[in-house]
Amino acid sequence: MRIERDDLRIERQSDGTTITPASLGLPSTPSWSINARTLRGGRRDGVELIRVDNGALAFDIVATRGMGLWRGQFQGAPVGWTSPVGDGPVHPAHVNLAGLGGFGWLDGFDELLARCGLEHNGPPGQDGPFAHGLHGRIQNIPAHQVSIEVSEAPPHELVVTGQVDEARLFGPRLRMMTRYSTTPGSNRLVVRDEFVNLGDRPTPLVILYHWNLGPPYLEAGARVVAAAETVVPQTTRAAEGIGHYDTFGSPEPGFAEQVYLYTLKGAGPEGRTAVMLRNASGDKAFVLWFATSQLPCFTLWKNTMGPNEGYVTGLEPATNYPNPKDFERRQGRFVELAPGASHVAELTLELLGSADAVAAVEEEIQGLQSGNGPEVHPNPCEPFAPA
Amino acid sequence: MRIERDDLRIERQSDGTTITPASLGLPSTPSWSINARTLRGGRRDGVELIRVDNGALAFDIVATRGMGLWRGQFQGAPVGWTSPVGDGPVHPAHVNLAGLGGFGWLDGFDELLARCGLEHNGPPGQDGPFAHGLHGRIQNIPAHQVSIEVSEAPPHELVVTGQVDEARLFGPRLRMMTRYSTTPGSNRLVVRDEFVNLGDRPTPLVILYHWNLGPPYLEAGARVVAAAETVVPQTTRAAEGIGHYDTFGSPEPGFAEQVYLYTLKGAGPEGRTAVMLRNASGDKAFVLWFATSQLPCFTLWKNTMGPNEGYVTGLEPATNYPNPKDFERRQGRFVELAPGASHVAELTLELLGSADAVAAVEEEIQGLQSGNGPEVHPNPCEPFAPA
Amino acid sequence: MRIERDDLRIERQSDGTTITPASLGLPSTPSWSINARTLRGGRRDGVELIRVDNGALAFDIVATRGMGLWRGQFQGAPVGWTSPVGDGPVHPAHVNLAGLGGFGWLDGFDELLARCGLEHNGPPGQDGPFAHGLHGRIQNIPAHQVSIEVSEAPPHELVVTGQVDEARLFGPRLRMMTRYSTTPGSNRLVVRDEFVNLGDRPTPLVILYHWNLGPPYLEAGARVVAAAETVVPQTTRAAEGIGHYDTFGSPEPGFAEQVYLYTLKGAGPEGRTAVMLRNASGDKAFVLWFATSQLPCFTLWKNTMGPNEGYVTGLEPATNYPNPKDFERRQGRFVELAPGASHVAELTLELLGSADAVAAVEEEIQGLQSGNGPEVHPNPCEPFAPA
Repeated sequence: MRIERDDLRIERQSDGTTITPASLGLPSTPSWSINARTLRGGRRDGVELIRVDNGALAFDIVATRGMGLWRGQFQGAPVGWTSPVGDGPVHPAHVNLAGLGGFGWLDGFDELLARCGLEHNGPPGQDGPFAHGLHGRIQNIPAHQVSIEVSEAPPHELVVTGQVDEARLFGPRLRMMTRYSTTPGSNRLVVRDEFVNLGDRPTPLVILYHWNLGPPYLEAGARVVAAAETVVPQTTRAAEGIGHYDTFGSPEPGFAEQVYLYTLKGAGPEGRTAVMLRNASGDKAFVLWFATSQLPCFTLWKNTMGPNEGYVTGLEPATNYPNPKDFERRQGRFVELAPGASHVAELTLELLGSADAVAAVEEEIQGLQSGNGPEVHPNPCEPFAPA
Repeated sequence: MRIERDDLRIERQSDGTTITPASLGLPSTPSWSINARTLRGGRRDGVELIRVDNGALAFDIVATRGMGLWRGQFQGAPVGWTSPVGDGPVHPAHVNLAGLGGFGWLDGFDELLARCGLEHNGPPGQDGPFAHGLHGRIQNIPAHQVSIEVSEAPPHELVVTGQVDEARLFGPRLRMMTRYSTTPGSNRLVVRDEFVNLGDRPTPLVILYHWNLGPPYLEAGARVVAAAETVVPQTTRAAEGIGHYDTFGSPEPGFAEQVYLYTLKGAGPEGRTAVMLRNASGDKAFVLWFATSQLPCFTLWKNTMGPNEGYVTGLEPATNYPNPKDFERRQGRFVELAPGASHVAELTLELLGSADAVAAVEEEIQGLQSGNGPEVHPNPCEPFAPA
Repeated sequence: MRIERDDLRIERQSDGTTITPASLGLPSTPSWSINARTLRGGRRDGVELIRVDNGALAFDIVATRGMGLWRGQFQGAPVGWTSPVGDGPVHPAHVNLAGLGGFGWLDGFDELLARCGLEHNGPPGQDGPFAHGLHGRIQNIPAHQVSIEVSEAPPHELVVTGQVDEARLFGPRLRMMTRYSTTPGSNRLVVRDEFVNLGDRPTPLVILYHWNLGPPYLEAGARVVAAAETVVPQTTRAAEGIGHYDTFGSPEPGFAEQVYLYTLKGAGPEGRTAVMLRNASGDKAFVLWFATSQLPCFTLWKNTMGPNEGYVTGLEPATNYPNPKDFERRQGRFVELAPGASHVAELTLELLGSADAVAAVEEEIQGLQSGNGPEVHPNPCEPFAPA
């Protein structure tokens, strides 16, 4: 016989603050809520989390981890993946970006959306006197000026904003101003980032949106649908799978990752395009809408390892490809921001829950493809990747 | 004349939560208490500490430092050592494992029990693309799911449990489930760890229990008593002292550490054995009971530096020896955990406060030794240490 | 239309504790206050800040950042500089001293006074098995035993003290005991540090006071006034500007820093001296008083970059020059502290707001100079800098 009491537990978790239609005197249909709280205990101690539930779609914004998106739910099913990290979201104090030989970023990697940048993304490396770890720093810098706003007028837009500064003496002075917005009952989430050069000199900027998905969107037979102009394997390992680069297998313990580098076709002067991950039966899909004028490079990360070690795929719209920094610089893929200038990237996440909806978006993407299949390179080649 | 007021101080320290027999409606003899609190100020800011005092033996569990044991007291005397760190226990946010050229672990090292593992222990080094700092990471990962339990039935076992995850993408996914237990009035503390491979592939595991003691157990003339089969100096420096490897001198500023690698004899199929550190007069001892089937390697760390820089010895039951990782791998000393499998290590700490008690345990250990003295190697040799 | 409410914001900031003459029953003229609070949100989350406002001069002590001075105000104008860091003071948990190839210290560098030491200052480098990052560790170690004291007797001295330990096994065991003091209405702040060797062996100590100033003290035509015996450029880049080493230009984006190494003349056996930064018109100045017996080396850091990337100069009294550690060791510039011994450094910061006051101090410094201009070396030379 034992006494076990909740009040003997050390990890005390405040419920935080919850905003609802009722608390603002707004109509209660469709129902929605926003909760802001500070997590306690373990590696998450001190993490500020904001959960927005619009009634259909819910998502967790991690203010302390660079305004990343931790996990989502759509109609009750998870949107995201199961990371081996386990007890995240991990406070940046427990992520040593210089650790593990420059791979310390992996210690905190468990998110639906992890941003990679702003001074660097891609593999660890040296750049003059400065060393950079895997995928840069922005995901492990806490946001400030975090706020929540709700529109009084219909459709009562739900907005969370925050600023993340990647800035130091002798380095860049970049600010990311992030705005997440959705409306009650919607299947869409708009992510809008404005990257401002607050410094006095032109400054290079890189940003890669590392969207990560597991089941139910990823499964054996799942497929990536995109209006691709070119597809290039990043490595010889990726070249092994070039014949079926856009489809996925079952979880396979020890699967070695395969990465494909795309250019995409888009509509209009902005190159508006979409990339979709649809499940095998085609009745569920995760779609990203964005503009190739803002994010000209797209990377597909296939990492179908075992279910407990990271069965996941990454859809990664970006300014560049995740290659060594020197290589990317030589290809001219850095955004050069003049003093005071901004680069804006806006992505709309859309979740589809019916065969009809999936077919409609697939048709729209096929329209962008306009008959010509992509040029698929069998091997790594420049300017996409070191040959 | 000055005003000094406590309420002008910045470091506010909550008293936390205290559990006593009275608070649970249990018999008040022998008296005991458990206190859980979060420390404030300095390098310890935010550290969660749980103090268990069973009436005879008290010990501090540091949830935030991998469920380590900070300090103990037995019958009013300290159990532990005086580390130069000074104002610990140090929050992992202030321990940079990649710092100091891979020796950053030392910044937080002030404990009675520091665990070394789980992916690595021993000196810093490179292992493929990943770098490892001194003695690995587990001691600087905060525990989650920490709980305190008290048995309603006599003898009213006092239990503290917690989980520590050493897990990341492209790395191990190991969980340590730790359980500390004692009973009111007892001179014993049982430490039971279960290490689970939550991943999908076989994963190597290393664990070394770095028990560290200073006075009153360590002093000039103190002696380590163990049923040793083999004793090997780890380095030529250690070889210098092989003639008196099991006895200790006075504090000596600048003393260069000496490390001895043992195999031990044990009883029964599990190889149950004990290692004892007894003071010079033989009326006080610190004893560790464990099974060589779980922890086949034993390391003795002699570090009798000055009293203010670390006069300390380490008794270190482990799965392996603290050698470079490549060397240990080649010797086959990693525990290979299948997916879902566990390795359990259980140690019982026993404190002795009388000559009779010390003599009884010494006799028991001599019984395990069974007449044959250990094979003592004069120099480092394989498979114990690089020759 | 939007609802924006303060109570929807995540970054909640407690007002902390404020001490005033009224709260202590002291005379209310001149007015003063001391406020202690913990900052919330962004990279500053958890930082303990103590603001002392003596009625004329205000300054922020960052207990969590090694008792550094964040910002000051004198008669309403800022004392300090505008660092690109932006949202500091930065909690040490977000400063990775091993990051950026050893330049991670820059991530937190936004202060009026940043101390560099105690085991190392100067550029990153390797020292035996240990690596050191830029400017050492003391500024990123939280203080403990922080207290505030107010003298009951006139002139009601306002005092803040704290201890910072730079200590570990196999390393130094140094304690800095810091005391800031001022009096109501004064234009002076006294900084007194006592560095104690708590270890058992002689230990080298280095300390450099990195005082950093921008406008209104720094501007085109501003000048450093010092009783210099020798002035040496640290690098060939600094040699380019040796002809006008003591005057400043306008902000210049991309300006490459220039560093000058001084020896100073002082009065009396202690070598009491002053260094002044005066604005162009000579009606404002920032003065440091100190003793060359305590701080024999003075470094001038000219970093007149653009206004948004760090338009700043550093006045740096120190035990040594910020050269590679091996070089400084060979020059014998480390303070060798015997066990239990202390080194004291006391600096008085004085702010001047009138042409008369500036002229008076300038005259006093010229008196120390006593007619002989400094020996100005055109190029880097030993023993000041590697030639």
